[in-house]
Amino acid sequence: MPAHEFPLPVVLLIVFGSAKLMGEIFVKLRLPALVGEILAGAVIGPSALGWIAPNDTLKALSDLGVMFLLFDVGLQVKAHELLRVGGTAMLVAMLGVIVPFFAGWGILLAWGAPQTEAVFVGASLVATSVGITASSLSARGLLQEVASKIILAAAVIDDVLGLIVLAAVSSLAQGRVNFLEIAFTAGMAAAFTVILAKWGTAAVNRILPHFHSRADAEDAQFHLSLIVLFALSALAIYTGVAAIVGAFLAGLALSDTADNRVRDLTRGVNELLVPFFLVGIGLHLDLSAFRTPATLALALVILAAAILTKLIGCGLGAASLGWQNVLKIGLGMVPRGEVGMVVAQIGLSMKVISTEVYAVVVFMAIATTIVTPLLLKIAFRGPSLKPVRT
Amino acid sequence: MPAHEFPLPVVLLIVFGSAKLMGEIFVKLRLPALVGEILAGAVIGPSALGWIAPNDTLKALSDLGVMFLLFDVGLQVKAHELLRVGGTAMLVAMLGVIVPFFAGWGILLAWGAPQTEAVFVGASLVATSVGITASSLSARGLLQEVASKIILAAAVIDDVLGLIVLAAVSSLAQGRVNFLEIAFTAGMAAAFTVILAKWGTAAVNRILPHFHSRADAEDAQFHLSLIVLFALSALAIYTGVAAIVGAFLAGLALSDTADNRVRDLTRGVNELLVPFFLVGIGLHLDLSAFRTPATLALALVILAAAILTKLIGCGLGAASLGWQNVLKIGLGMVPRGEVGMVVAQIGLSMKVISTEVYAVVVFMAIATTIVTPLLLKIAFRGPSLKPVRT
Repeated sequence: MPAHEFPLPVVLLIVFGSAKLMGEIFVKLRLPALVGEILAGAVIGPSALGWIAPNDTLKALSDLGVMFLLFDVGLQVKAHELLRVGGTAMLVAMLGVIVPFFAGWGILLAWGAPQTEAVFVGASLVATSVGITASSLSARGLLQEVASKIILAAAVIDDVLGLIVLAAVSSLAQGRVNFLEIAFTAGMAAAFTVILAKWGTAAVNRILPHFHSRADAEDAQFHLSLIVLFALSALAIYTGVAAIVGAFLAGLALSDTADNRVRDLTRGVNELLVPFFLVGIGLHLDLSAFRTPATLALALVILAAAILTKLIGCGLGAASLGWQNVLKIGLGMVPRGEVGMVVAQIGLSMKVISTEVYAVVVFMAIATTIVTPLLLKIAFRGPSLKPVRT
Repeated sequence: MPAHEFPLPVVLLIVFGSAKLMGEIFVKLRLPALVGEILAGAVIGPSALGWIAPNDTLKALSDLGVMFLLFDVGLQVKAHELLRVGGTAMLVAMLGVIVPFFAGWGILLAWGAPQTEAVFVGASLVATSVGITASSLSARGLLQEVASKIILAAAVIDDVLGLIVLAAVSSLAQGRVNFLEIAFTAGMAAAFTVILAKWGTAAVNRILPHFHSRADAEDAQFHLSLIVLFALSALAIYTGVAAIVGAFLAGLALSDTADNRVRDLTRGVNELLVPFFLVGIGLHLDLSAFRTPATLALALVILAAAILTKLIGCGLGAASLGWQNVLKIGLGMVPRGEVGMVVAQIGLSMKVISTEVYAVVVFMAIATTIVTPLLLKIAFRGPSLKPVRT
C-alpha cells in the first residue's frame, strides 16, 4: 500500500491539492468541479499514478466528509417541506427500486448468470446514494427547488427500501427467508426516519436551548450540534439505515435552531473533508477488470440500465409534475455510490457473485456517480441562485 | 482493540461527547476545559472504561487536530513580532534544553541506570510540545502578550534543538557519531524555519493573490490556505522538524492575507478536531506500569524534574524580563507531549531503555501536559482579554 509510505501531511497535500486542482480545471472547462475531484482520485489512485491507495484513515476522512455533507444539506432544508412532498417521494422511491431491480435481474439472467447472482445484481442497482446529488444541488444553490426536495425525501425512503431488499436478498442466498426479522428491521428503520423527520425539529427546538443556556464554553451551540449529528448517525446505524441518513436527519432537526455561526463552522469542516469523500470514490475505480470484451459489454449494458431504470422508474413516480421535473428527479436519483458496492461485496463474500460481476457493479456505482453531476447540469439548466465566483 | 468494534459515528460520539462533557464540568469547577478534555481520554481509554483504544484513525484525527491548532495559532501572530523577540527566545530555548537534559541524565545515573539509558531519558526531557500551551493561551486570548510570543518562538527553536539532540543520541546508541550528518540535519531544519519565519509572509503576500484572482471556486482562499498548510507541514517533515512546526509557520505566513472568512472556516475544523488531539493524549495514560514503589518514585522525581528544569532553564533565559514573565515563560515550556514519547520509543526499539523507564517517560510526557494549563492559569492571572461566555 503506497499510502503507508507517505506521512499524513503528504497524503493530505496530494489528496486535497489534486482534488482542488482538477476541480478548478473542470470549472474552467465549464464542467462540474465535483467530477474533477472524483477523477483526481482516479488519477492519483492505484489505477493510474498509484501515489495513494485506499486505507483506514482515508476511509474515515471520507465517511466523515459525506456525513458532514449530508448534515449541511439537512441544515438547508426544513423537515415540514420534505413531509409535504412525502407522497410523491414515496412513489418515486418505490418505482425507483422496483424498475432497476427487475432490469438488473433480467439482464444477468439473459447474460447466462445463475439465479442468485442475478438477484444480487438487481439488488445492487436498487439503492440511490444521494451524496453526489446533494453536493451538486447544494453547490449550485438549487436545494430550494421542489424537485430537489423530492429527491432528498425519496433518497431517505429509498435507503429504507434498500435495507429491506438487502435483508431479503441476503437471507435468500442463505437459503431461508425470515419474514419476521425482515419486517422488524424494516419497521425499526422506518420508525427511526419517520419519527425524526416528523418530530425531530420540534424536539431539538425544545431541548437544545435548555442545554445551551447552561453551557459555558465558547461555540457551545456548535458542539451541541455536532453531538446531535454523531448521536443520530450512530443511532441510524443501529436501526439499520445508513449513517448519512442519520446525519441528514440531524441537519434537518437542527435547521430551525442553527444560526449563521454554526453554519459557517460546519462549512469549514465540509470544505476540508468533502474532497476526501469525492477523491475516495475515484480511488476505487479499477479498469483492469475489463480485459475481456464480454465483461466490458456487460459493464456498459449495466451502466446504461442503471441510468435509464432510475430515470424511468423515479420519473414515472413524479409524472404528475411535468417532464422537466421528471428529468431532474429521475437523474438526481441515478448515483449508486457505496450502497451498490456494499451489496456486491456481501454477494462476493457469500460466493454467489463472481469477481467479474463484482467489478461490473463497482464500475456501475462509480460511473453513475461521475455522470450524475454532468446530467444534472443539463437538467437544472437556467440561472443558478448562487453566484459561482464570490 | 475495542475501538474496532464500534462504527465510526459511535467512536466520534464517545470521543467528542465525553471531551465536551468533561470540559464543561471542568469549567464549572473553575479549572481549564483543556484538562477536562485530556482526562476524558483517560476515562474512556484502556486505563479506565476501555470503550476506546488508540488506533490509526484516531491517530490521524489527532494529528490533523494539532496541525490545525498550531495553524490557527500561527494565524493569530505576526512573524515580525516573533523575530523581534528572537534573541530572548533563543536563550530560553537553549537553556531549556541543556538544564533538563543534564538533570534527567543525572537522576537516572543516581538511580543506577546504565549510561545509554540515562542519556535517552535526558533527551526525552528536552523537547517542548507547544500544542497544549498554544491552545491554552489561544483559548484565553493571551497570544498577544510578550511572554506568549517568546514561548511560541522558543518552542520552534526548541524543536530544531530537540532534533539535533535526538540525532546525536540515536547515533551514540548505535556506537558511532556522524557529526557531518548531524550538522546537515540541523542546518536543513534551521534553514527551513528561519527562511519561512523571515520571508514566508512576504512570499505568500506576493504569490497568493495571483492564484486567488484566477480561481473560480467559492472559498478558494480557504482552499489555497489549506494547500499552503499541508505543503509546509509535509516539507517540515522532510527537513526533519515536526509537522506542527510547519503548520505553525504556515499560519504565520498567512497571518497577513487570511481574512475573517478563512479564520472562521479554520475555527470550524478546529472545534471538531482539537478534542481528538486532547482525548488522544489521555488515551495513552497507562497507570498499570507503576506496580512497584521504586518505579512510582522515579516517575514522580522525573515529573518534578521535568517541571522544575524547564521553569529554571527557560526562566533563566528570560530573566531580564522580570519574575512574572520568567514564571509565564518557564511554565509555558513545561509540556513534553509526544516528542518525549517518541524519544523513549526509539530507545525502547533500540533496547537501551527498559519498559519500566519507558512507562515513566510516557507518564512524565502526559502529566506535564495535564498540569501546564493549571499552572498557566495561575501564572497568567488577571483579566482575560476574551470573555469566556459569548
